[in-house]
Amino acid sequence: MIDNAVAAAETALETYSELPPVKIAGFLERIADEIVALDDALIATAMAETALTTDRLSGERMRTVNQLRLFADVARKGEWKDVRVDAALPDRKPMRRPDLRRTLMPIGPVAVWAASNFPLAFSVAGGDTASALAAGCPVILKAHPGHPRTSALVASAIARAVEACALPPGVFSLIEGANPKVSLELVRHSGVKAGAFTGSLRAGRALFDAAAARPEPIPFFAEMGSANPVFLLAEALAQRGDAIAEGLAQSVNLGVGQFCTCPGLVVGIASRALDRLSEKLRVLFAHTREGTMLTPGIAAAYCDALAHIAKIDGIQVTSGEGKGAVATLFETSAPTFLRNPELRHEVFGPSTILIRCDSHAEVEKVARSLEGSLTATLHGTEADLRAHPALLKILTRKAGRMIFNGFPTGVEVCAAMHHGGPYPSTTDPRFTSVGTAAIVRFARPICYQDFPAEFLPSELR
Amino acid sequence: MIDNAVAAAETALETYSELPPVKIAGFLERIADEIVALDDALIATAMAETALTTDRLSGERMRTVNQLRLFADVARKGEWKDVRVDAALPDRKPMRRPDLRRTLMPIGPVAVWAASNFPLAFSVAGGDTASALAAGCPVILKAHPGHPRTSALVASAIARAVEACALPPGVFSLIEGANPKVSLELVRHSGVKAGAFTGSLRAGRALFDAAAARPEPIPFFAEMGSANPVFLLAEALAQRGDAIAEGLAQSVNLGVGQFCTCPGLVVGIASRALDRLSEKLRVLFAHTREGTMLTPGIAAAYCDALAHIAKIDGIQVTSGEGKGAVATLFETSAPTFLRNPELRHEVFGPSTILIRCDSHAEVEKVARSLEGSLTATLHGTEADLRAHPALLKILTRKAGRMIFNGFPTGVEVCAAMHHGGPYPSTTDPRFTSVGTAAIVRFARPICYQDFPAEFLPSELR
Repeated sequence: MIDNAVAAAETALETYSELPPVKIAGFLERIADEIVALDDALIATAMAETALTTDRLSGERMRTVNQLRLFADVARKGEWKDVRVDAALPDRKPMRRPDLRRTLMPIGPVAVWAASNFPLAFSVAGGDTASALAAGCPVILKAHPGHPRTSALVASAIARAVEACALPPGVFSLIEGANPKVSLELVRHSGVKAGAFTGSLRAGRALFDAAAARPEPIPFFAEMGSANPVFLLAEALAQRGDAIAEGLAQSVNLGVGQFCTCPGLVVGIASRALDRLSEKLRVLFAHTREGTMLTPGIAAAYCDALAHIAKIDGIQVTSGEGKGAVATLFETSAPTFLRNPELRHEVFGPSTILIRCDSHAEVEKVARSLEGSLTATLHGTEADLRAHPALLKILTRKAGRMIFNGFPTGVEVCAAMHHGGPYPSTTDPRFTSVGTAAIVRFARPICYQDFPAEFLPSELR
Repeated sequence: MIDNAVAAAETALETYSELPPVKIAGFLERIADEIVALDDALIATAMAETALTTDRLSGERMRTVNQLRLFADVARKGEWKDVRVDAALPDRKPMRRPDLRRTLMPIGPVAVWAASNFPLAFSVAGGDTASALAAGCPVILKAHPGHPRTSALVASAIARAVEACALPPGVFSLIEGANPKVSLELVRHSGVKAGAFTGSLRAGRALFDAAAARPEPIPFFAEMGSANPVFLLAEALAQRGDAIAEGLAQSVNLGVGQFCTCPGLVVGIASRALDRLSEKLRVLFAHTREGTMLTPGIAAAYCDALAHIAKIDGIQVTSGEGKGAVATLFETSAPTFLRNPELRHEVFGPSTILIRCDSHAEVEKVARSLEGSLTATLHGTEADLRAHPALLKILTRKAGRMIFNGFPTGVEVCAAMHHGGPYPSTTDPRFTSVGTAAIVRFARPICYQDFPAEFLPSELR
């Protein structure tokens, strides 16, 4: 199955990689149109498989479609190829400089692993697929076993677009299978030249390790766990504590806490204002309706994580009971947090840990102890930031996106977005999986020296 | 020793990474000036340690100094940071778009391994060091044991520049040691955030593997072995066979064959013209003076490789005797080449293998069988290229730089250069170690959401 898909991708590469940008753009737009045409059936199917709401899934479909159209635009414009030309200097001494022209070419067939938590936007025709196809790479998509019928529907939309655009069928293949062996076989296949993954640290790291250990190592982009710490500075907390609590409760519980940017740690200095925020959070969490998680396995893992944390000495469960997909608030002191490194890891689900520090120095100590994260958030006034310049610096070393007076959930798909960060949030902090810059993951430079224009890629002529 | 160097680099990072671009540029230019000031002593020392000629070393020093000045310019201009701004859309429905601004920030302390074959340009203050420093990263330099006194001299020049620019001393440290354990300890150090290496496949792969296996994997750029195949098409061979032979003999023997772009494979269709080229090559190789290789170890490895190839059934040694640093020409048939995969690997030294094919289809078969390479060269007329469009396509999948009617040695340091290629020529074909694009290896994106201008990096305000 994998051999066939990769062989078809290799064959497709020969024509697909040479397609004019306008044709690649047309293909991506056609996929978008075919997804729109799936209409209510797609939403109903995804709802039945993931327990996500109609609103959420409609929004996610819009994002998926817009993302495809955005990458169509990127492909059409071609600026992402970062063309560089150094014309010949025939009279240079001691020797002439040759004519050198550099562009980017598709890296080859790309394997993409669909995520559980975005059955559309990070799945079959999600951002990784869109950016790889836009770069000129055929895609072999490993479907997520959590939503097989949704995957099949979207794959059928892509298949119709492939046919309508008269492309070789191997430009896109869907692989199924819940056994990790399938994924390992795919990442180890010599015909696969890059991989992109969104999911757990354990699975992402196993695939990254397999990619690096190949006879020919390949780039492997895994977006994994992220704690997304939120720091509350004194003036902001005093001025807007209730609003911050409301925003936090909403951000933690959005989509039953199943976002990679769910804020899992909240840090502040012990004060009346922090007590008040804590009380407010408890009430808000207690009033949050119990959700249904994406799969029974994810729900079970969430409960296990809650039970594990609840047992740690010095941890209080102040909202929730440590079972079911219930919004859960933990509270603890900085020393307890610093003593228990496991508290730094992401918990996938609607929970967060409020950490009380006794001084700003302790806040910075907590910040320094954090693992890499997709985001870090600061709530403060400008005076707060001025009073504590070191904290911002510490956090920029820990995260890919810095947020001021906002919340980490809600990831814009645009040119300036960076959805990536130091390990373990990703395996390579230099790349984003969201936004137009995601395309460069799947291309490599090629330099032509002294070739006549006729034989150059069109953008180099 | 390593702990101290890395700790000093981490301390230096705090100030060095925040230095205004003009200060970083001034530092790089000061290093260039200090290297120039070393004057004849540097050339004499390098000559004594490497057996390279004065001319070659003077040229290499010029390249090193120009490279530092080029990266100073890159740092000063700041365009490499690929700044992206998506301004807020406060009235967007259903929710406002935040203000998003993305730039690149230094990845952290970088470990650089100096090469044996470029005691200046790929060594202590070579391209990797220059590009990492330009990106705002402190450098820990693992010196090559082949030229310790040259390394110490250049390190002293850097130290003077560090002092003159009042930078923290940890911005540059030199580590010595011939034991591979030193290198492994360095690449595994948690404070090191990226590595760059130029050398053998064995050493490069061992360090790459160690970098990928760390608890926090880091990007590791190894530039290793490359066969640099040269393809001779019929019309060009008939029209310019003698000139091609002369160019080839010169390119193979330049610097006693100790260039990563030394052409190690020559492929053509059996013909009178190819016989004539072979005869001419034999004469030119026989008249090439025996050189002294960089180190006794390198000379011994070269002799071993020659002896190994000479023993393969179907290989003829048509110039050279398979001992000493003697220009050596092997000749063989395509079937013999295809049957012996070891013939595809780089031999570090002045030798090349001429492969006779009986048809163009066999030429393409040889091309398809090749490993990844830094370069691939075609000698042909435009009619030749038109007659065989598939060959160019096959070769672009195998190499990072395509050369038309030229020779692979002589790597320009400029914006359009790509000195990289598919494995095993490098561990990641998406990056170059020569030219201005080398700087992006040592930076990662950071996105600021809704921050007031005062707290943004200057390029984002």
